[in-house]
Amino acid sequence: MPGVTHHCFGCAPNNRQGLRLRFQENKDGSVECLFRMPRRFEGPPGHLHGGIIATILDEAMGKVNRKKGIVALTRRMSIDYLQPVPLRVKLSAVGWPVKVEGRKHFHAGEIRTLDGDVLARSEGLFIAIDPIEMFRKYGERVSGHAKTQSIRTAKLKG
Amino acid sequence: MPGVTHHCFGCAPNNRQGLRLRFQENKDGSVECLFRMPRRFEGPPGHLHGGIIATILDEAMGKVNRKKGIVALTRRMSIDYLQPVPLRVKLSAVGWPVKVEGRKHFHAGEIRTLDGDVLARSEGLFIAIDPIEMFRKYGERVSGHAKTQSIRTAKLKG
Repeated sequence: MPGVTHHCFGCAPNNRQGLRLRFQENKDGSVECLFRMPRRFEGPPGHLHGGIIATILDEAMGKVNRKKGIVALTRRMSIDYLQPVPLRVKLSAVGWPVKVEGRKHFHAGEIRTLDGDVLARSEGLFIAIDPIEMFRKYGERVSGHAKTQSIRTAKLKG
Repeated sequence: MPGVTHHCFGCAPNNRQGLRLRFQENKDGSVECLFRMPRRFEGPPGHLHGGIIATILDEAMGKVNRKKGIVALTRRMSIDYLQPVPLRVKLSAVGWPVKVEGRKHFHAGEIRTLDGDVLARSEGLFIAIDPIEMFRKYGERVSGHAKTQSIRTAKLKG
């Protein structure tokens, strides 16, 4: 988005050492991203690190919040590693909303082959906060530059 | 270790875009790593991405397997995000064994401030496999180079 200079490891276009994931919205209410991961994110030989799998699923579920127009922070996440996730192969990450209880938003996510095989699955609990709370929580120990980003992001997402 | 050229995003010394975590063994049976993360791993402004927090905890719990002399793969992991984890601050990651049920090894992990405040907590289920199984599972779709690594790693860990 023009004017936004966030540096998110998962999705910032200008963080060249990050994953640079780009999600689109599907008609069924889910969000989806096609990706192909390079070797620097290796865990077991030839395959993605479990932490990067978690990162992709956190992003997929987090983007559901954005689609819903809320600012929310990950409170809990669980990941089932069902099959090894190969490097250098085009795969899909999908996230969708499951239920809402007050400020608690429960989402789910999957990493799939393009044939639809599920390689990893996640559940996440996200707590909706208002942008001022976001600023208070994350603004205290960071630089003025980052504070500006925080406000901008909150305004855009909130 | 001499002769080992693995490229793990979490702990390979030669993966300069990775986390390069180095764990030591504590006398109480836990493993521990001190780290300080740069901005390229940012999530919320000034703080670590939730996926990188998961990566660090996966590593902390995974190193418990190595300490026990087993080869094991992450089957399930859950993370509680208790407080934001700041960038550029020296922190500690600790992993320890919880229980064993046959091939199932249950471990736990925490990211702590140096004052002992817990910022994030994890539980993990790891399935012990033999090195030949490891080779079969991860060796099929990878290059000859990676296959060699796989065998080497399995020999070292098994």
